[in-house]
Amino acid sequence: MNRTISTETINKVGETVKLNGWVHVRRNMGKIAFLDLRDRWGILQVVCVPAELDEQSIEVLKDIRPEFVLEIEGVVQARGEKQINKDMPTGTVEILAKKINILSKAATPPFEIENEDRQAGEELRLKHRYLDLRHERMKNNMIMRSRMMQFVRNFLHGQDFVEVHTPILSKSTPEGARDYLVPSRKFPGSFFALPQAPQQYKQMLMVAGMEKYFQIAPCFRDEDARADRSPGEFYQIDMEMSFVNQDDVLSLTEKMFTKMIKELWPDKKMTHSKWPRLDWQEVMDKYGTDKPDLRKDKNDANELAFAWIVNFPLFEKQAEDRESEEHFHGSTGAWAPSHNMFTRPKEEDLELLDSDPGKVKSYQHDLVLNGVEVGGGALRIYDAKIQEKVFDLIGFDAKKKEQFKHFLTAFKYGVPPHGGIAPGFDRLLSILQSEPTIREVIAFPLTADAKDPLMESPSEVAKEQLDDLGIQIKK
Amino acid sequence: MNRTISTETINKVGETVKLNGWVHVRRNMGKIAFLDLRDRWGILQVVCVPAELDEQSIEVLKDIRPEFVLEIEGVVQARGEKQINKDMPTGTVEILAKKINILSKAATPPFEIENEDRQAGEELRLKHRYLDLRHERMKNNMIMRSRMMQFVRNFLHGQDFVEVHTPILSKSTPEGARDYLVPSRKFPGSFFALPQAPQQYKQMLMVAGMEKYFQIAPCFRDEDARADRSPGEFYQIDMEMSFVNQDDVLSLTEKMFTKMIKELWPDKKMTHSKWPRLDWQEVMDKYGTDKPDLRKDKNDANELAFAWIVNFPLFEKQAEDRESEEHFHGSTGAWAPSHNMFTRPKEEDLELLDSDPGKVKSYQHDLVLNGVEVGGGALRIYDAKIQEKVFDLIGFDAKKKEQFKHFLTAFKYGVPPHGGIAPGFDRLLSILQSEPTIREVIAFPLTADAKDPLMESPSEVAKEQLDDLGIQIKK
Repeated sequence: MNRTISTETINKVGETVKLNGWVHVRRNMGKIAFLDLRDRWGILQVVCVPAELDEQSIEVLKDIRPEFVLEIEGVVQARGEKQINKDMPTGTVEILAKKINILSKAATPPFEIENEDRQAGEELRLKHRYLDLRHERMKNNMIMRSRMMQFVRNFLHGQDFVEVHTPILSKSTPEGARDYLVPSRKFPGSFFALPQAPQQYKQMLMVAGMEKYFQIAPCFRDEDARADRSPGEFYQIDMEMSFVNQDDVLSLTEKMFTKMIKELWPDKKMTHSKWPRLDWQEVMDKYGTDKPDLRKDKNDANELAFAWIVNFPLFEKQAEDRESEEHFHGSTGAWAPSHNMFTRPKEEDLELLDSDPGKVKSYQHDLVLNGVEVGGGALRIYDAKIQEKVFDLIGFDAKKKEQFKHFLTAFKYGVPPHGGIAPGFDRLLSILQSEPTIREVIAFPLTADAKDPLMESPSEVAKEQLDDLGIQIKK
Repeated sequence: MNRTISTETINKVGETVKLNGWVHVRRNMGKIAFLDLRDRWGILQVVCVPAELDEQSIEVLKDIRPEFVLEIEGVVQARGEKQINKDMPTGTVEILAKKINILSKAATPPFEIENEDRQAGEELRLKHRYLDLRHERMKNNMIMRSRMMQFVRNFLHGQDFVEVHTPILSKSTPEGARDYLVPSRKFPGSFFALPQAPQQYKQMLMVAGMEKYFQIAPCFRDEDARADRSPGEFYQIDMEMSFVNQDDVLSLTEKMFTKMIKELWPDKKMTHSKWPRLDWQEVMDKYGTDKPDLRKDKNDANELAFAWIVNFPLFEKQAEDRESEEHFHGSTGAWAPSHNMFTRPKEEDLELLDSDPGKVKSYQHDLVLNGVEVGGGALRIYDAKIQEKVFDLIGFDAKKKEQFKHFLTAFKYGVPPHGGIAPGFDRLLSILQSEPTIREVIAFPLTADAKDPLMESPSEVAKEQLDDLGIQIKK
């Protein structure tokens, strides 16, 4: 007999079915036991009456406790009018058990699964993440993550974007944040770095003529934790296009997310159906921040106030706190890039690069949602001379420029004008799911102090492993 | 004016259009110049007649050479009957240029773009990968990679699978291949490891009740190169399901790839529309290998002979060469797992675990295509006692078992029977694209000796970076 999932039973009244799942709750009423059986799709009431069960099942039933994994054969019965539970999708039926089989027993979990409140601390929840993910709310976060990924991909494939995997074993370059390093075994003393973002790869894909690229890309920065940034890895919706202007990038992004929210989060309401495009200087003057919260009712959990911020200065005097997925500075000079060192200055301000760099405006665009930056991007420089001038202005010496040699070389062979944006996937999802931290929408996150209590990583490794790599731990 | 892409022009005869792209070929015939303009979608003939051009464009035209990036305004003209080029999708039209603008100049590339033959060595091609990817064949490999990803995802989403990102900063465990290590800054002397495969995470997602999980997952093994394995990173289609039998896993996989090939590679023909399921012992006796090439005509580049191999022994005396994406041994005892240490023995052979382990058969399944293993998987052990017994048989001491403590702990809390498969994404794609190595279907691969000639990684890093991590290079 094929398995029937919980929610399918409502259309199978009178049929004998085979069910699989976990015991969510057990209630005894005299000789009758009620089991709420949970699978990924829902919860189903199973009635266990000794007279209906075989000998073995009666015996088995005695042991059954919450979180046991069962296989149950039984008959789907319609509930009486009074017994219908309108709060449960399967509330119109129940299963009269005929045969019960225990597939796995379960010890008492370290925290309740049935109780949805976050009764356990984060460390304990992460140590037993396989139990924490059984909570309805966490399961839904994982499912919405999956649906959001698929929505974004289908949308961009529909727009003829090509999805490209860029390397995770990449190169350390001075782009601002601290790199995670990976020692090379073949070249002892040399290191790969995990990419802070696929910035250079996506630009080289434009040089390659890919024209429309995207990737839900893993990014790695060895930075200390913040509420909206998990230590270790996070994902960004990395998009890059050739032969576009800024409006093309903004309009496409706005269209994608508007459609996504309508489809996946229909209860959410947008404050502005057409997202305002605000001048950076005006926003700074009016709100004192470039991440204004434009909600009309800050108490409405379902209000979404998106806005674009444009006309940023190309440089800033001092590196601000990095907020955007694409923001990394790497400046050692008087000027730091406001967005990143690849951002294109506005044509009319090119002359100011020499005379008054602080006055140069750029084609940077930030996407702000309810006072949080959820994405940044820009049109990029596509002229090697301007790129070199920006390197000079941010204080790159010959050695640092040498690290970008491949990039400047690529710019010799026919570069299309290009630009893009990289909305933070986890951050946007956490806001849409009303979660306080992005760790709640990541299956197996590191803690705020960058360790994994489940696998107990990072961990010590064998001396031979380090010998192979030609490194040793400093005394 | 909006940009028109090359292939759209065939429906725009008589219209004035704006085009963007690269100069593929320039031919001069007296005062008239013919430019083949290339964009991602195709190649289009542009006719440049001085009398039709403005002054500036006439001047500009003189400089134009292959790989320049242009913006052209012109009128779409139908070609005369004799001039129609049936080999070109745009061969019914040509563009009469009115205005030509150079967006970027290009130096002469180190190898030809127009000539599709692999005239350059791999190192040179990788050093200028942004030019190599301009080749029609490489571009198509990238596009087919993108389409295959999307097909697989849509198919599995359609089957209600949840796509989950598992950690890339993971833990070093003795699973056979050499780990890439990532030193921790917060815990000096401790290391993350890049996952050889998400094996433990996917099993823990089954414990979590996810029931149907998949991921096109990056995997990392610090192994020396082979034709069908790129050093560094590769991707597998990682699928895991609960409450399934082996037939469920095999049938789903077969259905997915059959549909995929029909849709994306319609010229390919399958030798067997229903893939044979072959007994391992019989295959070994008959072919002397467990990867038989079952093609009827080995000279037919379009023939695909898929087969399943089942009934593997659970253990082998000595570790064979690792072929499967899921195969990793990590044995230190007399017995090594034939697949991996999580593979479920057949119920009827459980007693033999004590008396004659070499005779125990397992629920491993390998997918073979044209003599190449393209995927391996298994039903997994879901009983902690059997798992511990397998650890013992492969010679795990208390210290090694300690590294799997979290896994055995998870098994206390209600584990569903589960199993899956992990076809190698790059390897399968390379066969379907008739490419000799998987590096041809990866955008930015490492060379066979594990370096990236483009970014010049791995590379030296600053001493301060190593100080931060508490490591140093061995003298």
